[in-house]
Amino acid sequence: MIITDIIQKKKEKIELSQDEISFFVNGYVKGDIPDYQISALLMAICLNGMNEEETFNLTMAMRNSGDVLNFNDCNRKFVDKHSTGGVGDKTSLVLIPLVASCGVGIAKMSGRGLGHTGGTIDKLECFKGFNSELSSKEFMRLVRNEGVAITGQSDNLAPADKLLYALRDVTATVDSIPLIASSIMSKKLASGADGIVLDVTYGSGAFMKDAKSAMQLASLMVKIGKKAQKNVSAVISNMNQPLGYCIGNSLEVVEAINALSGNGPDDLMKLVYTLGSHMLIMGEVVDNTDDAYKLMQNAISDGSALEALKNIISAEGGDISYISDTDKFDKAKNSYECICHKSGYICHLDALKCGHVAMRLGAGRIKKGDKIDLSAGIILNYKVGDYVKPGDKLSTLYSNYDITDDIISDFKNAYIISDNNQVNEKLIYDVVN
Amino acid sequence: MIITDIIQKKKEKIELSQDEISFFVNGYVKGDIPDYQISALLMAICLNGMNEEETFNLTMAMRNSGDVLNFNDCNRKFVDKHSTGGVGDKTSLVLIPLVASCGVGIAKMSGRGLGHTGGTIDKLECFKGFNSELSSKEFMRLVRNEGVAITGQSDNLAPADKLLYALRDVTATVDSIPLIASSIMSKKLASGADGIVLDVTYGSGAFMKDAKSAMQLASLMVKIGKKAQKNVSAVISNMNQPLGYCIGNSLEVVEAINALSGNGPDDLMKLVYTLGSHMLIMGEVVDNTDDAYKLMQNAISDGSALEALKNIISAEGGDISYISDTDKFDKAKNSYECICHKSGYICHLDALKCGHVAMRLGAGRIKKGDKIDLSAGIILNYKVGDYVKPGDKLSTLYSNYDITDDIISDFKNAYIISDNNQVNEKLIYDVVN
Repeated sequence: MIITDIIQKKKEKIELSQDEISFFVNGYVKGDIPDYQISALLMAICLNGMNEEETFNLTMAMRNSGDVLNFNDCNRKFVDKHSTGGVGDKTSLVLIPLVASCGVGIAKMSGRGLGHTGGTIDKLECFKGFNSELSSKEFMRLVRNEGVAITGQSDNLAPADKLLYALRDVTATVDSIPLIASSIMSKKLASGADGIVLDVTYGSGAFMKDAKSAMQLASLMVKIGKKAQKNVSAVISNMNQPLGYCIGNSLEVVEAINALSGNGPDDLMKLVYTLGSHMLIMGEVVDNTDDAYKLMQNAISDGSALEALKNIISAEGGDISYISDTDKFDKAKNSYECICHKSGYICHLDALKCGHVAMRLGAGRIKKGDKIDLSAGIILNYKVGDYVKPGDKLSTLYSNYDITDDIISDFKNAYIISDNNQVNEKLIYDVVN
Repeated sequence: MIITDIIQKKKEKIELSQDEISFFVNGYVKGDIPDYQISALLMAICLNGMNEEETFNLTMAMRNSGDVLNFNDCNRKFVDKHSTGGVGDKTSLVLIPLVASCGVGIAKMSGRGLGHTGGTIDKLECFKGFNSELSSKEFMRLVRNEGVAITGQSDNLAPADKLLYALRDVTATVDSIPLIASSIMSKKLASGADGIVLDVTYGSGAFMKDAKSAMQLASLMVKIGKKAQKNVSAVISNMNQPLGYCIGNSLEVVEAINALSGNGPDDLMKLVYTLGSHMLIMGEVVDNTDDAYKLMQNAISDGSALEALKNIISAEGGDISYISDTDKFDKAKNSYECICHKSGYICHLDALKCGHVAMRLGAGRIKKGDKIDLSAGIILNYKVGDYVKPGDKLSTLYSNYDITDDIISDFKNAYIISDNNQVNEKLIYDVVN
């Protein structure tokens, strides 16, 4: 088999066989095929696409490039969750302890934030002492003993995806639905869960800019998962405005703790309960949505969900005194209150602009490896649909850097206030399973 | 300027500016931009194209990456010739001495054969002692003194094209009309001629498989040349069957010597006179086609065209005794006569299949740097349209290797013999200027 023939085929929009796909994935991982040939192939895939069969074969070739975990020897079902990312998206911080407290096993590998989107691992590091880099052995021990653990991405899980993603990142070949679907699913299928619940976001703050492409991505990932004999559901959720009221690592952790204590914002809780009910049914602890909601509401009201968060944090070395006293989290030196100057309804609150401002305040990374400021971020007081009037405090920006006029002006551009309350966007657009 | 933004633009089919094109060409030549980014961009160009403006800017950026020659201080006009390649294509060997003998200046840089197509430099090396690697200084000295010289491609002429071509070759990004046009024209525009005559071949043995794409390529190259203030014409010629009767280096040299002696095959001479008349008019030695034909016919009949070949060869160290005694050229050890087994008209004689067979006999290179056998090749006795009957000797194969049954069977497949003489293909499809 010759790599240039494979590139030529994809350039001519001809379907690649399973053997051809394995050949280029394995050849790339082994170092037999150079970057410049793979990047030409990736561009041809971006422009000419891949069908479901090819995308499935690519996913499996990447999954098989490293370890494939399993928890068959544990006495519970394991369910994994993945979000395609967003702004103010602290869903995992609430969902994982909540679902774990209901008896579902979770062995979660999470990422760090990049660009305008946040990452669960950064947020967990707000708890002093939390070890986000568990060894495989320690991670598996915790999963088996506690039924739940969260750690950073393992290098041994789908290493082909890691290599391909790094190359896509520098060759403008990221935004391809087959490449995104296979990248996500290769890691999820390697992570050993019986079921997978996907939160596929769309809108300004998401990777997919519209519901249609989010639906395409979701359907493709569900098909790949089912073909690999996994239980998979995808929830398509709106990320035009930030989720909840807090953006930035420790600010979001506090919001998540409040949510687990029964004081979560409506949109966050709606998403958590929707995703959680799929996870509980897949985890075989309930068999219908009503029972799932009841079980989760109980776990919050009786304190067991918050207790589960404490157990996760302490098992991984984190200081849980922060949970009972959230004032202990580091505070940013500088803050700026954004005051409303007109009356009307907030009809747009741009998630991407909020995310970029939070990043400039220090809450996010421009490139991988950048240091971030866990205390920086934004607290919103109003969301889309709310009526505001002159003098109302719209939001507060927090940073250890100077909060410049330039940042403030960019942030104000995130708001559109109008006389009419014309917005009618649903948080949950659809569910694919 | 960021290279990923440029790749992204071309991926989204947005026109690249002159600055963006110069940025990536210069960045690549300097080594600031790695292969893997350029190969992704090349694939995006292959699939999304480039308009005339972009292709012109790419051509000029590549031209300007190295030396740009000029012969303004010489007392004659210089005209360059380029062919997109073919099988049995010894046109340059006849055309260059012929046109030079009529008073047109020619400073020709030629390539070597690759794949099924031959190269002028390999053929000239059939003359013992011929130095195909003149220094720039020696080349320019000969051009100024003799008015004509032929040498291999200089490394200093359009080095960006050399780098980009090598990358295209290994990333399946060769077959793009804008990339082919800019590659050819960057070298031609750097080579200092006042006029350029292009032989754009199409058909089985050519790079362009149909007349339509050859016309596209030709029109684009003519437009680029005119925009760069050069006189440019393109002749679109048919390469469905080999040109002339001989394929293989020394066999073609003998055919060229015969042509310069007045015994050339019809198709070869038709192409030579067509291209030559454009060159003579551009070279300002005649002002119409009739006079051009008369001048060339005289140069052949009075021996001055053959004399010009001798002068070129001897000025570059080659042994010209081969010209008066063509039996001196090395002969291949083995030969095979291909006998006809049915009667009818030859309605197809596949140039690509002939080229591949000649390559396997030793006449061509599979990859750059391979050694070739100058004596190997094919002599055809009949061409398309000829009537043949059982027992007729169709052709002879020559090689220093064993001529295997496999090669013979592949070669026989090049012929289609039919009861009806149904072929009506013109050698010259069109002229663009």
